[in-house]
Amino acid sequence: MNIAVDIGNSSAKVAVYKNYQSIFTVRWSISDLLTELTGLFLRYPGIVNSIISSTCNNYNDIAGFLKRNTEYFIDFNYKTPVPLVNKYKTPHTLGPDRLASAVGGASLFPGENLVIFDFGTAITIDIVTQSGEFMGGNISPGLSMRFKALNAFTDKLPLKSQVESYNLIGEDTDTAIIAGVQNSVIFEINGYIKEITEKYKEIKVLFTGGDGNYFAKRVKNPIFANCDLVVYGLNNILEYNVQNKN
Amino acid sequence: MNIAVDIGNSSAKVAVYKNYQSIFTVRWSISDLLTELTGLFLRYPGIVNSIISSTCNNYNDIAGFLKRNTEYFIDFNYKTPVPLVNKYKTPHTLGPDRLASAVGGASLFPGENLVIFDFGTAITIDIVTQSGEFMGGNISPGLSMRFKALNAFTDKLPLKSQVESYNLIGEDTDTAIIAGVQNSVIFEINGYIKEITEKYKEIKVLFTGGDGNYFAKRVKNPIFANCDLVVYGLNNILEYNVQNKN
Repeated sequence: MNIAVDIGNSSAKVAVYKNYQSIFTVRWSISDLLTELTGLFLRYPGIVNSIISSTCNNYNDIAGFLKRNTEYFIDFNYKTPVPLVNKYKTPHTLGPDRLASAVGGASLFPGENLVIFDFGTAITIDIVTQSGEFMGGNISPGLSMRFKALNAFTDKLPLKSQVESYNLIGEDTDTAIIAGVQNSVIFEINGYIKEITEKYKEIKVLFTGGDGNYFAKRVKNPIFANCDLVVYGLNNILEYNVQNKN
Repeated sequence: MNIAVDIGNSSAKVAVYKNYQSIFTVRWSISDLLTELTGLFLRYPGIVNSIISSTCNNYNDIAGFLKRNTEYFIDFNYKTPVPLVNKYKTPHTLGPDRLASAVGGASLFPGENLVIFDFGTAITIDIVTQSGEFMGGNISPGLSMRFKALNAFTDKLPLKSQVESYNLIGEDTDTAIIAGVQNSVIFEINGYIKEITEKYKEIKVLFTGGDGNYFAKRVKNPIFANCDLVVYGLNNILEYNVQNKN
């Protein structure tokens, strides 16, 4: 069995795999992670391979735990072999979660052009070509970050958060912020899909990350939504390296 | 002569008007404002009416200065009479700059539907109908705020800032952030223009604020761009009250 751990800016996603099949997936807060992982290893003693990816600077305790408790361990970074050609010009500054979700997408849809939206703390929009090249992509503030920024960087605007239903135009300050932030993301997604499909003609749109399902319901184009694309990709990278290690 | 002062979250816009005609317009940092205004009143001893609008909590020193140095002074707030019908449901939390730019727009284009984008610390998108009703609008993070948020609210992303030219998709982390943030605003503008013109059929698009000209060059639709719409509107509000004061 394999374990894949993806540490984000605000929480961590953990998944246990058996033959490419996820048998357990969970999101834990980073402060609970070490305790929860200890319990997880007691429940799944068959875990022998592990991989960790982090967008944060400090994850040595978790990496050390996985290294001690598995036979084969990957601290995923830009030097790790992956089943994609990485065309990013600064591979050492590429968020490992972005490359992992690209591997996950390419594994689900081999031979297709892909645009992968990851709706997390930041929104990343990445391109993988049908020939298996990671072409790079963009980074913009995530939904919660936009709400937080309006409150933190102005004197008077209140902190709001995402709601299910809202109008095009707000009619008071709360709805102005809610409609403003949520429409800003919706219009951004629609703008990318329009421009990218003009450029690539045939391209599959994938949504992942915490807000992936939320936005999948709100765009007109057909979308493949999978909240676990990063850990799924990490497991693919782990298997790829396990099989090629000798 | 009139003076209009608009205090924003990061700086202040000041304009001197003679018969609705601006004879001096400047942007000053808030820390220099009192000193600069003292000099300005020495240069323009004909200033007799003043109006101030602020999106910040603390502007008592500037308001006090204007009150002492002019015959007629307006501390612009939701109770001030304006030549528009304010349909906002929480008028006391409406940013006075938003109402002022709406008055400015309606004065420039009377009898037309207007959507006014103000590109400042926050981006506001407001609707004024052809019958002179302020309908409300939306608030989302401004261009610089988006760059700042990505840096402040993540562990590893660098602080970038606006550039003149960039591609649809970034190819390293710097260009990923630049293209990500700038496209997020462009796609947002295009999305609003599309949805709002579907709803209102005939509507004029106005851009104002610090980044107004920057974005006016980057959208396809015809735009009326005026960086000084808020102070222009404040002067209109001042004249409206001067003429109705007896």
